[in-house]
Amino acid sequence: MTSAQDMLDTAVEEARKGLAEGGIPIGAALFAADGTLLGSGHNQRVQRDDPSIHAETDAFRNAGRQRGYASTTMVTTLSPCWYCSGLVRQFNIGAVVIGESTTFTGGHEWLAEHGVKVTVLDDERCVSMMTDFIAAHPELWAEDIGE
Amino acid sequence: MTSAQDMLDTAVEEARKGLAEGGIPIGAALFAADGTLLGSGHNQRVQRDDPSIHAETDAFRNAGRQRGYASTTMVTTLSPCWYCSGLVRQFNIGAVVIGESTTFTGGHEWLAEHGVKVTVLDDERCVSMMTDFIAAHPELWAEDIGE
Repeated sequence: MTSAQDMLDTAVEEARKGLAEGGIPIGAALFAADGTLLGSGHNQRVQRDDPSIHAETDAFRNAGRQRGYASTTMVTTLSPCWYCSGLVRQFNIGAVVIGESTTFTGGHEWLAEHGVKVTVLDDERCVSMMTDFIAAHPELWAEDIGE
Repeated sequence: MTSAQDMLDTAVEEARKGLAEGGIPIGAALFAADGTLLGSGHNQRVQRDDPSIHAETDAFRNAGRQRGYASTTMVTTLSPCWYCSGLVRQFNIGAVVIGESTTFTGGHEWLAEHGVKVTVLDDERCVSMMTDFIAAHPELWAEDIGE
């Protein structure tokens, strides 16, 4: 059994990788029920000039084709936007662990209403990483969430 | 001014490309307000072994980084799943034109409730393409929508 905090550490590591690459520091990881890491990734808007790769999308892609996600957990450093919340709902990902929802709140309450097990942590590393990034690059952040 | 039917033709062409490649025949395209094609694409689950690329995602990606989507129209051969509906909502894509919603219904009514201009056509080419595909490859279709 892997704790929510342990799983979050993997996502935080991904977010830091993204930051080091000059990208938007959001990371995510998809875990199997037994704690096996299926895939992890981070936002790639800047690095690959690709607006379609959010952290959750990247982790989902890197997990490859799976037959069923009900027993998996998506861990992300930030509350999932509607795009990523839609991913979770469509593929019936069973649980979502969120580093923080202070700097941005997406669709995690909607997911909870639709039966996804949602855990929101209040991780200071995640909050400060996004707070600093948004202050330094407000235009990039607005672009990433379509504002 | 480009008609919904003209725009749909581009998406149908993409779906046919996907079918010819052995893939799931769903196509999409993103148009600017003046009718300029920004990007088009098709489902790539089979071709690239990538579960994250639905038709709408592919079109969105191929349109590159844009600063604002409110005046754009996403055209797709099939009612957008929750993943792709979430994409439309997060990036404030202004309008969605749908070839058909008979073989599958995703989140297009939810999008309409949230202010997206939704047009559902009843295009026989789209219906028959999906009907034939689902009959021939039920397992692939179930995989693509997480069932």
